[in-house]
Amino acid sequence: MKNNVILLNHGSGGRLTRQLIDEVFGARFSNPLLDARTDSSIVNCGGTSIAFTTDSFVVQPRVFPGGDIGKLAVCGTVNDLAVSGATPLALSAAFIIEEGFDIQELDQFAESMANTAAEAGVSIVTGDTKVVGHGMADGLFITTTGIGIVTEDHLAIGNASRVQPGDVVIINGPIGDHGMAILAARNDLPYKADVKSDCAPLSGLIATVLDRCGESVTFMRDATRGGLGTVLCELAETVHRDIVVDEASVPLRQVVRSMCDMFGFDALFIANEGKVVMTVRPDAADNVLASLRKHPLGAEAVIVGTVDEGSEGKVHLETSIGGRRIIAVPAGDQLPRIC
Amino acid sequence: MKNNVILLNHGSGGRLTRQLIDEVFGARFSNPLLDARTDSSIVNCGGTSIAFTTDSFVVQPRVFPGGDIGKLAVCGTVNDLAVSGATPLALSAAFIIEEGFDIQELDQFAESMANTAAEAGVSIVTGDTKVVGHGMADGLFITTTGIGIVTEDHLAIGNASRVQPGDVVIINGPIGDHGMAILAARNDLPYKADVKSDCAPLSGLIATVLDRCGESVTFMRDATRGGLGTVLCELAETVHRDIVVDEASVPLRQVVRSMCDMFGFDALFIANEGKVVMTVRPDAADNVLASLRKHPLGAEAVIVGTVDEGSEGKVHLETSIGGRRIIAVPAGDQLPRIC
Repeated sequence: MKNNVILLNHGSGGRLTRQLIDEVFGARFSNPLLDARTDSSIVNCGGTSIAFTTDSFVVQPRVFPGGDIGKLAVCGTVNDLAVSGATPLALSAAFIIEEGFDIQELDQFAESMANTAAEAGVSIVTGDTKVVGHGMADGLFITTTGIGIVTEDHLAIGNASRVQPGDVVIINGPIGDHGMAILAARNDLPYKADVKSDCAPLSGLIATVLDRCGESVTFMRDATRGGLGTVLCELAETVHRDIVVDEASVPLRQVVRSMCDMFGFDALFIANEGKVVMTVRPDAADNVLASLRKHPLGAEAVIVGTVDEGSEGKVHLETSIGGRRIIAVPAGDQLPRIC
Repeated sequence: MKNNVILLNHGSGGRLTRQLIDEVFGARFSNPLLDARTDSSIVNCGGTSIAFTTDSFVVQPRVFPGGDIGKLAVCGTVNDLAVSGATPLALSAAFIIEEGFDIQELDQFAESMANTAAEAGVSIVTGDTKVVGHGMADGLFITTTGIGIVTEDHLAIGNASRVQPGDVVIINGPIGDHGMAILAARNDLPYKADVKSDCAPLSGLIATVLDRCGESVTFMRDATRGGLGTVLCELAETVHRDIVVDEASVPLRQVVRSMCDMFGFDALFIANEGKVVMTVRPDAADNVLASLRKHPLGAEAVIVGTVDEGSEGKVHLETSIGGRRIIAVPAGDQLPRIC
């Protein structure tokens, strides 16, 4: 791949992103923490386990139904910490700004970052500002990095080492809202698409579940760029177990379903920004669902599948019409700059 | 300022940067750690003090004599940790890449990041990759964030709380090399300017000094975007003490002096990427100088000034011709995208 150039799909979170990470960054930076390819790295800081994670945000448009680049920049990093079993502690924020950018607009995103950080119970404690000339960046890019403390009993949640056959797969609500909200905001659709991004900080929801039934949760991951499908494909591969998903049980709003049909997208691989996928011991599934549903961000939580005895590491989709097919992560997607 | 737009000088590290941070980010994100305006925030993580710092790198050109954007991205963050008295522990790296960017070039920067990280004794443990369309970014931007442990006895180094009148100001070598190397790489100069960036990870040098005479070092800061002058002006303001600098003692290579004269720059405010400014108890100055000079990155270390009894918080420059003038941080500078 080194004789090639970067394509938009290298940033999609799909197979090409994975290849770029493996062949360039993974090969050059290799170390046990990076090689784990978890959402957050777990760094031992003088005996305390610190989750450490970073994301750049380049979403276009910067304001969309349900959020903006500032809210997204805080949610994305807070959620990466929370699904690692960490209590988010502090964020950094680095801004790359195009010359000529409106300071009032910048202030609006700073306000939205501050509000979201407050909602997530985390502070933005350090930052950086760089300015590049007119035409050298598309307005504003924000990179947030987060640290949080992981207690001993939650260490296995990020690396999936406790996942077993029989564990059920739960998601906290309908998929694809974020991706379709961005698509709708970007295009002059022939009809009014009433869809809002699900962008939200999941730290409160996740803390509630871990407090009540933490020992039964064997894995968590937020389903962002690559959607629910990518999370499950990567999990199946990591734990060398098959995962069976019941297509009919996957929650999907009608508007998202229609838009996916219209544009030819598979909703399983459409981005979310407020969805956590978890695997849970079967005997605790009802308790976990009950905990999730008590929280506004988990009201529509459901079971969507099961970890199977099969050891091929594939995801099988049981379709609504009774068939069964293996799903695979697409090379890229048709929606660049979704986050 | 909110009715205005972002100017290149908002990213210069000078007065306009400070104003933007105070009026937008500082006002929105205000919390005790951010309000301290230190290079690294010190976060209490379960009883361990963690230094936490971030920087985006947008340098143009990406390759320059003495370094490249990858080396710079590691040095910048490692140095921010080291001058906070922290032992660098782990870095994150987030890449924003323009569609069409050459993967071989990307790999070269990844290699240079890996080499510099190894030299600094730190691992890159987590990261992110985003791609934006052609024309939407100028090639490659890298944001690194670092964490490191600060022991109890080094906590005051970052916040300058122990600085006293009589402390001497030491720098580990000549100033302005980085800024002038970038300028030379960017322009077709009418002569060959033999100047290399001083870009280097200072963690080893600083560890040596702290090991041998840590209790005598009252403050450290790396003199980057705003140069030695900005570090001293900010320090004087923070500690409400005047600082007297002896112009003749400030180390400056002839080529940098000539370039500054030719372009009308004040070398005191030109960027460095491998220079640490420290204040030291007067009775330990010789020991600190000796420790610094034993290390290749401190061979040209010298005393450049003294913290004075005066409490106006100003920096006085004793000029080579016997005069004395107050120096102030310029609003911006003529060298955007220096880092």
